[in-house]
Parts: sequence; structure tokens; C-alpha cells
Amino acid sequence: MTALGNTYDVVVVGGGISGLSAAKLLLENGVSPVVLEARDRVGGRTFTARNKETKWVDLGGAYVGPTQNRILRLAKQYGVKTYKVNEQERLLHYVDGKSSTFKASFPPSWNPLVHLDFNNLFRTFDEMGKEIPREAPWKAPHAEEWDKMSMQQLIEKICWTSATRRFATLFINVNVTSEPHEVSALWFLWYIKQAGGIMRIFSTTNGGQERKFVGGSGQISECMARELGDRVKLQSPVCRIDQSGDMVLVETTDKQTYMAKQVILATPPVLNLKIHFNPELPPLRNQLINRVPMGSVIKCMVYYKENFWRKKGLCGSMVIEDEGAPIGLTLDDTKPDGSMPAIMGFILARKCRRFCGLTKEERFKRICESFSRVLGTEEALHAIHYEEKNWCEEEYSGGCYTAYFPPGILTQFGKVLREPVGRLYFAGTETATEWSGYMEGAVQAGERAAREILCTMGKIHRSQIWQTEPESEDVPARPFVTTFWERNLPSVGGLVKFVAVSGF
Amino acid sequence: MTALGNTYDVVVVGGGISGLSAAKLLLENGVSPVVLEARDRVGGRTFTARNKETKWVDLGGAYVGPTQNRILRLAKQYGVKTYKVNEQERLLHYVDGKSSTFKASFPPSWNPLVHLDFNNLFRTFDEMGKEIPREAPWKAPHAEEWDKMSMQQLIEKICWTSATRRFATLFINVNVTSEPHEVSALWFLWYIKQAGGIMRIFSTTNGGQERKFVGGSGQISECMARELGDRVKLQSPVCRIDQSGDMVLVETTDKQTYMAKQVILATPPVLNLKIHFNPELPPLRNQLINRVPMGSVIKCMVYYKENFWRKKGLCGSMVIEDEGAPIGLTLDDTKPDGSMPAIMGFILARKCRRFCGLTKEERFKRICESFSRVLGTEEALHAIHYEEKNWCEEEYSGGCYTAYFPPGILTQFGKVLREPVGRLYFAGTETATEWSGYMEGAVQAGERAAREILCTMGKIHRSQIWQTEPESEDVPARPFVTTFWERNLPSVGGLVKFVAVSGF
Ligand SMILES: Cc1cc2nc3c(=O)[nH]c(=O)nc-3n(C[C@H](O)[C@H](O)[C@H](O)COP(=O)(O)OP(=O)(O)OC[C@H]3O[C@@H](n4cnc5c(N)ncnc54)[C@H](O)[C@@H]3O)c2cc1C
Ligand SMILES: Cc1cc2nc3c(=O)[nH]c(=O)nc-3n(C[C@H](O)[C@H](O)[C@H](O)COP(=O)(O)OP(=O)(O)OC[C@H]3O[C@@H](n4cnc5c(N)ncnc54)[C@H](O)[C@@H]3O)c2cc1C
Repeated sequence: MTALGNTYDVVVVGGGISGLSAAKLLLENGVSPVVLEARDRVGGRTFTARNKETKWVDLGGAYVGPTQNRILRLAKQYGVKTYKVNEQERLLHYVDGKSSTFKASFPPSWNPLVHLDFNNLFRTFDEMGKEIPREAPWKAPHAEEWDKMSMQQLIEKICWTSATRRFATLFINVNVTSEPHEVSALWFLWYIKQAGGIMRIFSTTNGGQERKFVGGSGQISECMARELGDRVKLQSPVCRIDQSGDMVLVETTDKQTYMAKQVILATPPVLNLKIHFNPELPPLRNQLINRVPMGSVIKCMVYYKENFWRKKGLCGSMVIEDEGAPIGLTLDDTKPDGSMPAIMGFILARKCRRFCGLTKEERFKRICESFSRVLGTEEALHAIHYEEKNWCEEEYSGGCYTAYFPPGILTQFGKVLREPVGRLYFAGTETATEWSGYMEGAVQAGERAAREILCTMGKIHRSQIWQTEPESEDVPARPFVTTFWERNLPSVGGLVKFVAVSGF
Repeated sequence: MTALGNTYDVVVVGGGISGLSAAKLLLENGVSPVVLEARDRVGGRTFTARNKETKWVDLGGAYVGPTQNRILRLAKQYGVKTYKVNEQERLLHYVDGKSSTFKASFPPSWNPLVHLDFNNLFRTFDEMGKEIPREAPWKAPHAEEWDKMSMQQLIEKICWTSATRRFATLFINVNVTSEPHEVSALWFLWYIKQAGGIMRIFSTTNGGQERKFVGGSGQISECMARELGDRVKLQSPVCRIDQSGDMVLVETTDKQTYMAKQVILATPPVLNLKIHFNPELPPLRNQLINRVPMGSVIKCMVYYKENFWRKKGLCGSMVIEDEGAPIGLTLDDTKPDGSMPAIMGFILARKCRRFCGLTKEERFKRICESFSRVLGTEEALHAIHYEEKNWCEEEYSGGCYTAYFPPGILTQFGKVLREPVGRLYFAGTETATEWSGYMEGAVQAGERAAREILCTMGKIHRSQIWQTEPESEDVPARPFVTTFWERNLPSVGGLVKFVAVSGF
């Protein structure tokens, strides 16, 4: 190994979507990158496994939808097509031991007070989001106040009914794989906002879960890696970065040394801790990276001989409120051609930690039992195959889907999240300002970090670092239309006041 | 370097008090340890600097007191003496722009409602602590409920007056270098309890700040290191641990490999992330270590020509409630022989992050200005020397004094805090059950981890792993006597009810 042979313009740490899209953009602009990836595969938090039982299965990030234009652009470039997740039939909502079907993004309630409460809660989330700047949530007018609150506190403030509180908990579990009392209200409201609001983030049709990639999301990283060729080094966990000399030195645990003018760290923030830095990181960054934990999730896929739910008029989406059930949310995971009938579900947050200790077989069994209760048929018990991935055990993810901010952290440390440190630049979906936490955010962050470097090299102007993305032609976004009643129905509190004042 | 030359019974990662006391105990029991320390010095979060302006100064952990019998035993063994921190004259409490003097552990209030409120708050902390097991706080009867709450929520529940709420905030800032909304109530109440309660943890006389070591606390680690000789390797940051083979392999960033039968990790939990593990850590530990941030503190010492405060009848202890002031709490830091008159103070939590950005000179200036306001004399402006240490910038501490648990973490992840992983054992003050967060806890944890290994080697019985410590003869503990009124005064709420019921 000669020093020269290992010299590049830019070392990118992390071969997930973010790091690879950074390297790709650099290479396209005549800059020479190398990607150092800890695992023996690219893709990071996306991972498409292939086997005969499933053909292919996305064990990590999978869903895409309208407004996620960057990841859709990349996919299209590589000829990776999308298909719609089945939502033709009715959805199921399981609560208090009973299932009911519905057709909408959110399960309705027939209790009028719960209906008002529910409507008001989610309307309030979006309203509060309006005053939070995507790129600087710590500058929101009420940033300090909201950051000191957990989502649990906010929910308790807004909600009058326990049904709404319980559903809000599931909503938080599903979106950020953590518990309401664990996350800052400011951070969570920002998260929803930067993904386009309540309806966009939670919907299948016209929302974040509208589609999947035919053949799996892993292909996108694989295609980028193919393009980068031997510039991608697998099984190369970075353990040391020394930027005290003329060139930045990057060392891996297998004792290889790479040299570069600049470095992009494209890992979850907390995984910066895997690296020993010389000089040390500045104090706020040194502390930020021990304050942003990764969520807890096990992604599970249950395979059946037949797509029995569709025969019953159900699309396979289930919203499950049942403390004993492992899974909180499901979607149909049957292949686009109708083969390999399957249901995908997430074990989330507290449940993830609780069901962690069981064996894979036990989880499989419990999941089928729960599905059978919710779907009201013992057919659900006769699954023929099971796949799962517990992301909590992954050393190079730390958890999934993304980092969360506990109360107090965003306002005190947020501003250093993507602030360069000498010749180190920061990518990774956590540093994005649109669909952060998603594959889309990974691309936005990677390309932005690459352009920060292009800018320091004098190849582009400062004003070109942040770029908007034209809308995908194949996956256009439709606006969400709120009804007069959704906008104007009172909250329960408002109703109580009205009733009191009008003296009924 | 032959492989054999680097083979030991036990590799200890971390040459702080905990790692060194583990290694010392192992060696005394005929087991061969090596200590790998990242820094170029031992002592970790304790650090005694020496120079002509100060003679010696403790930039990190310094104070010891009654019931801290293990660290006192070690000190005595090495002939390191303690001296009493000066508390002869009156203390100062600065609030609402005014100073008043007092003589007690806590500043009194002359407003009777505040007095009741204050009395009730701290009494309640101790009462709640009684039902929290030191060794398993997650087993407390109300563990779930209290862990979902932040201390801010608990304070808001208990307190009626803003004066008490404000003081409670300072109390949390001082004890755990974090903010009330950042920490779990269960964790904080446990922390106070395992340090012996409100009075023990906060008092100078008869409490945790009663004494300092003559010559500095750093001597204790230095003496242990001297005893261990070339078994202590400095500048040896561990970056990889492989326990897949017969022997555990431990690698440092300078590419040295050590082999051992067992390993003790004696670092703050989050710094386990500095190490790449093979096999990966189990899921709960993998996630625990990204959920326990280190507090934020800058320790500051201001030196004067003369001990002018004692001449004014003040001991040098100041409790400063002033949002603009950098420092929240001070103690006299004059040498035991009266030389080098100095005042020690902490910049804590939110203030630490705010004042981080200033230069050392600016901080020095602001501190002197604040001291001059509080002490009511411009003599405070004429300091002759300044020392400080910002622990947030230390890569191998991550922050100080200790790790805190945000809401929800202790109940979900606490039980794996010191659960061995294969041949890895866990020490470090965070894993202690008495005075965790302190030097005392570091010794308890180090010796316990060493005995876990002695037990697996068959050298001691399981029942001998956890040992109690005889009381220090030189630093005996006196009980804190609560008065009839402290025990029986109503809370403000109780008073309100009483007044309402008796129809005044
Ligand atoms: C179960 C699950 C479901 C999800 N669902 C969706 C979804 O439906 N839609 C969606 O858009 N997103 C989803 N996500 C999130 C999405 O997968 C991520 O946001 C995205 O993949 C993050 O990409 P990244 O490149 O920023 O980070 P990563 O993918 O985490 O990439 C970081 C890379 O850095 C590597 N690395 C870490 N440390 C080092 C080191 N020291 N040296 C070298 N390499 C290192 C890692 O191995 C990894 O490959 C989901 C994630 C999971 C796990
Ligand atoms: C400002 C301040 C004030 C304090 N005040 C007091 C007080 O008054 N009284 C009191 O009792 N306590 C106090 N403390 C706390 C006390 O200092 C700590 O509790 C105690 O020193 C912790 O000891 P430890 O051995 O558990 O951890 P540490 O001292 O943190 O030791 C861990 C060691 O591991 C090393 N290390 C980390 N990662 C690696 C790696 N990958 N490879 C090799 N080595 C590694 C570190 O360099 C360090 O030396 C204070 C701390 C600070 C900073």
C-alpha cells in the first residue's frame, strides 16, 4: 500500500444512500471520492435481501411517495421502477379488542367527542408546524417552550379523550419509533412538518407510503456503488480521522489509511462516536453526538400461501392498538405481480424493547396470533414464511429509522448538526431539511454536503449549495384537501366552552 | 511486538479511578491486568494540574465527604490527606439581584409560603427516593410513571411558588449538570437517593463537598498507576474489541493489539461507542449506549491576592440565581494553608452551552463581574489568575460530571447497564449503586467489576462480588437531624386545603 494509491479528493464515510449520493455527485463534477463503508454491503439502513421464499424483501427503508423527488429521480435514472402499495380494499382499525374497517388515511371515530378531539389534535400539530422553519427549527417563535416539552406533555395539554391520546401514541411510535415521553415536542412537530404534514407523512395513497421500488430499495445504493466501482470500499469501518496535517488522514479498523482534502461523514450523528478525532470535535458537536439516540424498530414480514385478506375485502393495512400485540401498523407487502402474498408490520419503540428478548420463532408466532385476532380469521395463523430485521442490534445503525431528539436538545445543539468542522462535512438523513429520517432526506443531505465541498473548491457558488428539486413526473403530489368541518369543528375544549356559555 | 508480550489475564479499558481500582484489585489477587488509557495521563474525569500560579488545582472531580468510604480508603492507603473546604463564615444567596447571607446547607426563605413550599419539595424528593432500590431503580413501585416524567414536570407538580421552582432548577443544574426538562424524574430521584439524600449530596459540612484532597484528587489515580507500573499504557485509545476467538483481542488506534481472557470497560457508557465490537453488542446495550448523554460543565477557578471574602465574614460559598451570571455555585478554593486565595465555581448545563462560545478571557471577565455583584465589592474584579476546564470538549469524557438518563430510558434499558456481555464486564462510576457519578462510585464499580472476574475465575464466591465498606475513621458521617417542623410543616397545597376546610 503506497500512500499515493490511497489518496483521493474526498473520503466519504458511510455507504448508505446519503454517502453514495454525495460521492456520485462529486465524481460527476470531476472530484475524486472514495466511500468507506463499515459493513460488507452498501445501503446502510436500506437492505434488500433476496431468497427463494421472498424473491426480494426490503428489511429496512422501503416506502416512497409524492414530494420525495430526489430519491425518485435517482431511482428513475437507474431504471428502478415503483409500484403502488395495495390500498384498494378497506383498512382495519383494531382497538379495545374489536376490528372495524375504514377507507381513509386515519381511522375514524364514531364517538363525536373523540371525533372532535382527534380532528383538533392533528390540526393543531400542522398549525404548530407552520411556525417552525424547516432549516432551523430552533428559530421557531416558541422553540424554547416547545423543546422543553415532551410529546407526551403536548398530547396531555391538547387531548380531552383517552382514545385520542392512545392513538397519538401509536402515531408517534409509527413515525419516529420512539415514545411520546422520550421526544421533544418541538422536534416531533418539526419532523412532521418537514415531511409535508400529518396527511403526507401518514398516508399510503398520496403520502410517504404510496409506493415501493420494484426489486427493492437496496438497488439504488447498489447501482450507485456499481457506478463508483472500486471507489467503494466495503468492510472498512473508519476508526480515526486526523485533520491536523496538510491532508486529512482517515484510518479503518483493518489498518488501511486513506488521505483526502476533505471528508464527508454520512452516518447517523451518534455514529460519529465510532471515530477517534484529531483534533477533538468542538464542544457542542462533541456533546450533540451523545444526545441524539436512534429509534427502536423490528421490521417483520409474514408470508402466506394466499392473499386471503383481499378476498375478505381488506387491503392489508392494519392499525393495531393492543398493548399485548407486537405490531402496531401493517401494510400489504405482496409483490406487484400478486405473487408472494405477505403482510409487513413494525414492532415499535417500547414493544421493540419488550419483544427483543424473544426468539425469532416466538415473535413469528405472536405476530400471527395477533393478525388472526385483528383479521378475524384463523387463516392468519398458517403463515408459510417469516422475515424480520431487528435494527437495534446493528452496530453501524444504532437503531432505526432515524435519530430522535429528547427534550431540550434541538434548541441547544441543533445548530451544529450540519456545521462543518474544519475539513469535515456532515451528511446523512438526520441533517436534511425535507424528509429527514427518510431515503429522500439521505439524498438531499448527501448532495448538499457534496456541493458544500464543490463550493469550497470554487466549482460552484455558495448560492448553489441548496437546490430545490423538480417534481417527479411519475409520482406527482396531489394537495390534501381539508373539508370545511375539519377546519372549523371546535376542539372538545371549545365545545365545552360553547356549551357552558350558551347555557345548554 | 510479539503476541505473547501483549497477553494479559484482563485488559482494562480506561485509566480513570474506576479502571485503575479494578486493575489494582486484580493485581492484588494474583491476576495480571493491563490498563489501556486513551489520554496521555491517568485520572480521566479527575485531573490535577500543577503550575506556579496555583501550586495545584483540581480541574475535574475534587470533593469528598462522609459515607464516601472507598475513595477515602484508597487515599489513606497512599497517604493522601483530606482537608475541610472552608465553611466557617456565612454563605451567600444571590437572587432577584440581592445577596443575603445564611448559615446552613440550603439558603432559607423569609417568605412563609416559599418556606413551606421549599421544605415540602425537598422532603418529597427524599420520600420518593425511599421507594427506589439503589441497585435496581427500574423496580421501584412507581418506576414507569416517574420515568416518563421529566424533573421539570415533577417540580411543576409539587411546587406552588416560582422561587422554589427556580431554586429546584439550580439544584438539578448543580447536582447533575443538566436541565430539569432533560432528565427523568425516576433517574434524578434515584441519583439523590444513592448519594444519601438531599442533605448529604448538597451539603459542604457533613456532605459530599466537605473535603478535598491535599495536593489534588489526581494523586489517587497517579498512585494507583505507579503501583501498576508498565501495566498502564497511556495514549492507547481502544478502537476494536474482538471476542470471537479463544482470547479477547483489544486493538488501539496506534495499532497495538492486546490479548486477554476478560475485558473490563471502565469508561462512561456512551464511550463504548468509540469501540468497534466483534461480535456486535446485544440490541439493548447497543441502544443504551446511545441514550445516556454526558452532562455539561465548565469548572472555573478565580485567584485573588487576598482572601477578601473571609474578611467580610463570608466563607466563599455562593448560591447564585441570576440568568445572566455564568456561575451558579461557588466554594472557597483557597489552599489548606491559606495560600493561593481562590474561588471555585461551576458553569452548568444551559449556561455551559451558552458560554462555550466565548473566549477564556471573556468568561474570566464575566465571572469576576458577577462575583463582584454577588459579593458586593469591586475587589472581586481584581483577580490575578484564572483556571478553567470545559469538559464538553473532552473527546474521552463526552461531558461531565456524569451520564444522565433522559425520560424513559432507565426503565427500558437500565437493567443492562452492568450486565456482562460475553467476556466484557462493565465498570465506571455510572454503573455504581452508591455515589454513582462520583469518585466513590468509580471505586465501587471498578472493584465490583474486578470481583466479577475473580468470581468467574473461581477465586471468590458469587456472594463476595458486592461488598460493603467500613466507615472511614477520619471522615465519619453524622446523621442529618430533621426538625419536627421540617417533618411536619404542611405543603402549600396542604395549607390551602386546611385553610379551605377550616373555613378561615
Ligand atoms: C425498518 C426501517 C424502515 C424504514 N422505512 C423507511 C421508508 O419506508 N421510507 C424511507 O424513505 N425511509 C425509511 N427508513 C429510513 C431510511 O432507511 C433511512 O433514512 C436512510 O436509509 C438513511 O440513509 P443514510 O445514508 O443517511 O444513513 P445509513 O443508511 O445509516 O448510512 C450510513 C452508513 O454508514 C455506515 N457507517 C457507520 N459508521 C461507519 C464507520 N465508522 N465507518 C464506515 N462506515 C460507517 C453504515 O454501515 C451505513 O452504511 C427506514 C429505516 C428502517 C431501518
Ligand atoms: C468538573 C467536574 C467536577 C466533578 N466533581 C466531583 C466531585 O467534587 N466529587 C466527586 O466525587 N466526583 C466529581 N466529579 C465526577 C468524578 O470525577 C467522576 O465520577 C469520576 O472521576 C469517574 O471516574 P471513572 O473512572 O468512572 O471515569 P473516567 O474518569 O471518565 O475514566 C474513564 C477513562 O477512560 C478513558 N477512555 C475513554 N474511552 C477510551 C477508549 N476508547 N480507550 C481507552 N481509554 C478510554 C478516559 O480517557 C478516562 O481516563 C466531577 C467531575 C468533573 C468533570
